[in-house]
This record gives sequence, C-alpha cells and structure tokens, in this order.
Amino acid sequence: MGIFTYDIKSFDDLFVHQLQDIYYAENQIVSALPEMIRKATDAKLKAGFEKHLTETSGQIKRLEQVFKQHGAAIQGTECPAIDGIIREANDVASEVADNTVLDAALIAAGQAVEHYEISRYGTLIAWAEQLGRPDCAALLRQNLDEEKATDKSLSELALQRVNQKAA
Amino acid sequence: MGIFTYDIKSFDDLFVHQLQDIYYAENQIVSALPEMIRKATDAKLKAGFEKHLTETSGQIKRLEQVFKQHGAAIQGTECPAIDGIIREANDVASEVADNTVLDAALIAAGQAVEHYEISRYGTLIAWAEQLGRPDCAALLRQNLDEEKATDKSLSELALQRVNQKAA
Repeated sequence: MGIFTYDIKSFDDLFVHQLQDIYYAENQIVSALPEMIRKATDAKLKAGFEKHLTETSGQIKRLEQVFKQHGAAIQGTECPAIDGIIREANDVASEVADNTVLDAALIAAGQAVEHYEISRYGTLIAWAEQLGRPDCAALLRQNLDEEKATDKSLSELALQRVNQKAA
Repeated sequence: MGIFTYDIKSFDDLFVHQLQDIYYAENQIVSALPEMIRKATDAKLKAGFEKHLTETSGQIKRLEQVFKQHGAAIQGTECPAIDGIIREANDVASEVADNTVLDAALIAAGQAVEHYEISRYGTLIAWAEQLGRPDCAALLRQNLDEEKATDKSLSELALQRVNQKAA
C-alpha cells in the first residue's frame, strides 16, 4: 500500500490488513526461530523454542483458515514492527560474549515477540467479533492462547535463572 | 555498539543495555504521541493518549533515577523494535480514510506500544532482582503498572466500540 492512498476504507479493510500483518509476522518468526534455537544453550530454552516453532507453523495454517473463512486472499503485508523486534534480537544476541547472558537475552527477545503477537491477536479477536465473525475469532483465540502460554513458559525460565543465581 | 564486537560481556552490561533501549523507546513515544492525539477523534481516546503522554514523561524521570542508582550514564541506544512499531502505526494511520476506523487503528497501535513496554519492563524487573537491585526493580515496577493500566484502558475503549456497534 502506498502512503496517502487511503487504501483502508472500511473496518473490514482494517481487519484484513491486520490479518496480513500478523501472517507476515508469523512467517518471519518461523524464519528467525532456527537461529534462536541454535544459539540457546539452556536445554529447556532450546526445547521451548523448538516447541514454539512447531506451534507457529500450526498458527500460520489457522491464519490461512481465517483468510479463507473471511473470503480474503491469503497474503502478508509489510510489518516493520516484527522486522524491528527480530532485528533488535539479532543485534543484541550478536553482542553477547557469555552463554548464560546470551540465554537471558534470548528469553527477553522471545518475550518481546510474544507480546507483539498477544497485542495483535487481542485486537484481531475484538475486531472479528465486531465484524460478526465468531468463527474467525475462535481460530484467532487458539493462536492467542498459545502465545500467552509461550510467554508464561519464558517468564518461568527467566525466574528459574533468578532462583538458581540466588541459591 | 558494533556487530561482533561483543560489547555485552556481563549480565550487568545486558541490564544496562536493556535500560538504554527502553529509555530510547520512551523518548520516541513522547515524540510520537502528539500526532496520535491530533489524529484521534474519540474524546476518550484523545484524553487517554494525553494522560499517557504526561505519564510517559514521569516514566522517563524514573528511568533516569534507575540509571543513577545503578551508577550508569543516562543514555539511550538504538531500538529498532520501537522504531518499527511506531513506523507501522504511522503507515497504517496514513492509509485510513474513515474516522471511526482510524480510532480503531490508533487503539491497536497504542496497544502494540504498551505490550512492547510491558515485555521490556517485565524483563528489566526480573534482571534487577537477579542483580540484587530491589530499589531499581521497585521504580521499574511503577512504570510497568502504568503501562498495564494504559493497555487495560485501551482494551476497554476497544470493547466499548464493539458494544456500541452491537447496540
């Protein structure tokens, strides 16, 4: 879309645009996770990222289902937000010399990604309901629940590290 | 910091880097909010953004206090994540032709910003505790609580819009 072309004319256009945004974001996350898995040294963190990579592929399939149910073409759109979040994760990870510090940075990067997605799915669910599409909202809620569970697991891993340090 | 220079050697370096990141982010938000206030048409949304602009200035002061307490220089660092989130907000807002649709887009943009901050403050609080700095953690928690309250207000505004539509 071009600037000042006002391509978003209706609420439905906005919903589809946001769907394209998260579709692009999920695909970028699938591309970024293998490097995060490779860098993680903590076994639980590595396993957590691996589990989330499998989940993300399932989330992409659910998004494709939402596009179909809503009668919109399956496609992504530029998402500078997720590009920035992933770039920042890579920048910081490339600066870290110590493995345990790197794991802490990777947990933080993962949580920034999850919170972006939690925000977007929360919005999409509200909009799907506003548009009278409970079927789309139900699929999006499954993705939201998985993102929240991943964020919670990452918080628990971060807390374990704090407790290990204190012990 | 340069790539592959491994400037983050210790956990303390990582904490200070993340502090610089959120300090830059909060300053970018102070720069971006006036335009969001100008664009918002719903009176409650406009007032909400105005309140958050005042709060954000207070949050920047608290962050400066954290830098001082921790003995670190007050400075920001590049934060591609917040730059991307704000760029995306501006891109989408510039595409929207209708005022009520624009308000919905602005609420969503605000929530993406809040979730980024919630994620970063959550991380910073855990790290401050790990570093034995409950004084820094307490200040950071005040910022986190304000971000969570702002996100909740934005969710309530979004829900009111859904209910108005249904009525």
